[in-house]
Amino acid sequence: MLKLHGFAVSNYYNMVKLALLEKGLPFEEVPFNGGQSDDALQVSPRGKVPVLETEHGFISETSVIIEYIEQVHPEHALLPAEAYARAKVRELAKEIELYIELPARACYPEAFFGMQVDAVIKEKAKGELLAGFDTLKRNGVFSPYVAGDTLTLADLYFFYSVDLARGVGLKLFGQDLLEGFPQAKALFALIKENPHVQKIAADKDAQMPAFLEMIRSGKR
Amino acid sequence: MLKLHGFAVSNYYNMVKLALLEKGLPFEEVPFNGGQSDDALQVSPRGKVPVLETEHGFISETSVIIEYIEQVHPEHALLPAEAYARAKVRELAKEIELYIELPARACYPEAFFGMQVDAVIKEKAKGELLAGFDTLKRNGVFSPYVAGDTLTLADLYFFYSVDLARGVGLKLFGQDLLEGFPQAKALFALIKENPHVQKIAADKDAQMPAFLEMIRSGKR
Repeated sequence: MLKLHGFAVSNYYNMVKLALLEKGLPFEEVPFNGGQSDDALQVSPRGKVPVLETEHGFISETSVIIEYIEQVHPEHALLPAEAYARAKVRELAKEIELYIELPARACYPEAFFGMQVDAVIKEKAKGELLAGFDTLKRNGVFSPYVAGDTLTLADLYFFYSVDLARGVGLKLFGQDLLEGFPQAKALFALIKENPHVQKIAADKDAQMPAFLEMIRSGKR
Repeated sequence: MLKLHGFAVSNYYNMVKLALLEKGLPFEEVPFNGGQSDDALQVSPRGKVPVLETEHGFISETSVIIEYIEQVHPEHALLPAEAYARAKVRELAKEIELYIELPARACYPEAFFGMQVDAVIKEKAKGELLAGFDTLKRNGVFSPYVAGDTLTLADLYFFYSVDLARGVGLKLFGQDLLEGFPQAKALFALIKENPHVQKIAADKDAQMPAFLEMIRSGKR
C-alpha cells in the first residue's frame, strides 16, 4: 500500500492527501517531520514533507508525487489527457507554487508561528505576492475551478497555498489579497464543501496544538 | 511551427532550446524580454521567459514547456516511460530548481550585473544553496548523467542552473560549490561536448554584450 509520510498541518502534505482521497486510493499515513537528521535525509534528500513511499522507494516533492499518482492511477484524473490543456493546468499550478506559495512561505514563521522575519525578506515577499495574485487573476479560468470545469492539480495548489498566502497578507501587510477577486472566494467556498477537504481540515485542526507546541519548544 | 519566445542569455530559455534541439524539432526563435508591460503579460501571465508558442496558444514555465514537448514529441525521450523512474528524474530536476536555481537567482543581480543584493537576502541564499548542493550530491546518480545513463530533464536543469549557482558561490561567497563534487565536474565536461550545447553557448556569447548594455541602461 502507498504510504504518505508527513504531518497533517503541512499544506503540501494535504495537497497529496487530497489527490489520494479524490482518486479513492488506499494509503497509510506515516508521521514524518522532515528536517536535516541523517534519518530524515534517507527518506527525503532535502528533508522535506511530504514523501510518498511506493513499492519501488521514496518520492519527494509534491508536484512530482502527484504526477506519479496520476500516471499510475489515472482514474479521477487531476490532469487533462490532451497535451495543451494539460500544460495549462500545470502552468497554473506552477505559477501558484512559485509566485504565491514560495513568497508567502518566506513569511510563515512570523505570520503563523510567532517568530520574526527580517523586514527585507518581508518587503521582497510582498512585491512578489502581489504580482503572484495578479498572475492568478490574469491566467485563472475559475469556471468554477482554477483551470476550467473540473478539479485539477491547479486547484490543489490553489486551495492549500492561496489561503495561507491570504493569511500572510492580512497579518503582515494588513491587506486582503482576495479583495476584488470574487471568483477565487467563490472557489474556496465550493472546495470547502468537498468531504475529503473537510476530513483533511479536521485532521489538521486536531494536530495543530501539538504542532504549535513543537514549534514553541524549538524542536522543529 | 513551434516558436520559442525569449533571449539567448536566459538559462531557462536555454533549457527549452536544448530540449527542442535534442529532439530535432524545428522551431523559430522570437525575441522576448518578458517584463510587466501589457504586451508582455499577454504572452506570459507573470511576464517570464521562456514562452513556447504552439498552434493552440502560449505556454509559460520551463518545466511545463518541456513536459509539453515531451508529451507531443516523445522521440529522444527526456523522461523515462516507467512511472517511478520518471518520478526520480522529475524529483532531481525539481530539487535543482527549488534548492539551487532559486536561491542562486536571488543573487544574480550582484553576481553578474553589477547591482547590490541586500546582505540578508544573500545570507539566506547561501544557506539554501549549500543545502541544495548537498541534496544534489545525496540524490544525484551521475552515471554519468544526473539521473542515470541517459540525458534527461534533470540534466537540463543541472547544466543551466548549477553553473550559474557556482558562479554565485565563487563571486559572492568565495566558495567553490563544486569542490568535492568530481562527478558533477565530470558531467559538465561531458555535456559541454554536445554540439547543441555548443551552439546554445555561442548564441549566448553573441547576445551577451547587448544584454549587458540593456541591463546597464536600466531598460530591463
